[in-house]
Amino acid sequence: MRDQKAFQDYYPESYSHCYGCGRLNPHGLQIKSYWDGDETVCRFDPKPYHTAVPGFVYGGLIASLIDCHGTGSAAAALYKSQNRPMDSDPSIRCVTATLTVDYFKPTPINATLELRGTILEVGKRKAVVSVTLSVNDVVCAKGEMVAVQMPENFPLEN
Amino acid sequence: MRDQKAFQDYYPESYSHCYGCGRLNPHGLQIKSYWDGDETVCRFDPKPYHTAVPGFVYGGLIASLIDCHGTGSAAAALYKSQNRPMDSDPSIRCVTATLTVDYFKPTPINATLELRGTILEVGKRKAVVSVTLSVNDVVCAKGEMVAVQMPENFPLEN
Repeated sequence: MRDQKAFQDYYPESYSHCYGCGRLNPHGLQIKSYWDGDETVCRFDPKPYHTAVPGFVYGGLIASLIDCHGTGSAAAALYKSQNRPMDSDPSIRCVTATLTVDYFKPTPINATLELRGTILEVGKRKAVVSVTLSVNDVVCAKGEMVAVQMPENFPLEN
Repeated sequence: MRDQKAFQDYYPESYSHCYGCGRLNPHGLQIKSYWDGDETVCRFDPKPYHTAVPGFVYGGLIASLIDCHGTGSAAAALYKSQNRPMDSDPSIRCVTATLTVDYFKPTPINATLELRGTILEVGKRKAVVSVTLSVNDVVCAKGEMVAVQMPENFPLEN
């Protein structure tokens, strides 16, 4: 899947500043998500300071990764359901309506986190995505999120 | 409430490295939570790079703040239910079992975010906390979380 362009690299420039997934946010996590068959995948190496208690990842990072991988997966699923390539117009960018995360066990910090998304539902402007977060094939957390397509008149400054 | 010591400043040193709420994590958010009557409150000023789209806060920060304010509130509620001051032993530190966040509207970034926690349930080693996140008294997001007391044999390194 590494010969694919990441979902986030299709985001229009004005929507590419997200701390979690924007390629133009130098302070941020800059996650990259890809199709892997019918699933979506993102791998992320936490920094040493992403700690909860020593040795483990803090829950907010886990929620952030699930959230941004989920919105990316939702956008990709919407393009797919419309039989459109991700570089076609109008562009699709999703935001989260609801996010739920279940934390099953402490997530080791000195490891690559693998997020796998499953598209549960796709509507006209909405998708429901389930995401597991695993380390060495052990699921440490699981999320489910409802993502909706951003309206075209979304204000870009408050 | 500013004459109170923050909940997080009672955490034992070994549990004070969390990116969201650890006073000993120089890279982290270092949130501070306090009692305000029966509610708990935390105020946080996002950094310019905590952006989702320009002008607004990314959802992962909102989830992180709700999560860490929630675990702090849960610990405070457990001490209270046991009629114990927060500097008494054994210390109580909570972790999240489940977190749900509903995002109602875009959260402005050039503003102080106010998180208010309500303790919905307190058990022997568990608390359920509801948290609103508001800007200028407008609720932008709402979370609910189940926090459980960390076992005393929690491994501090993986």
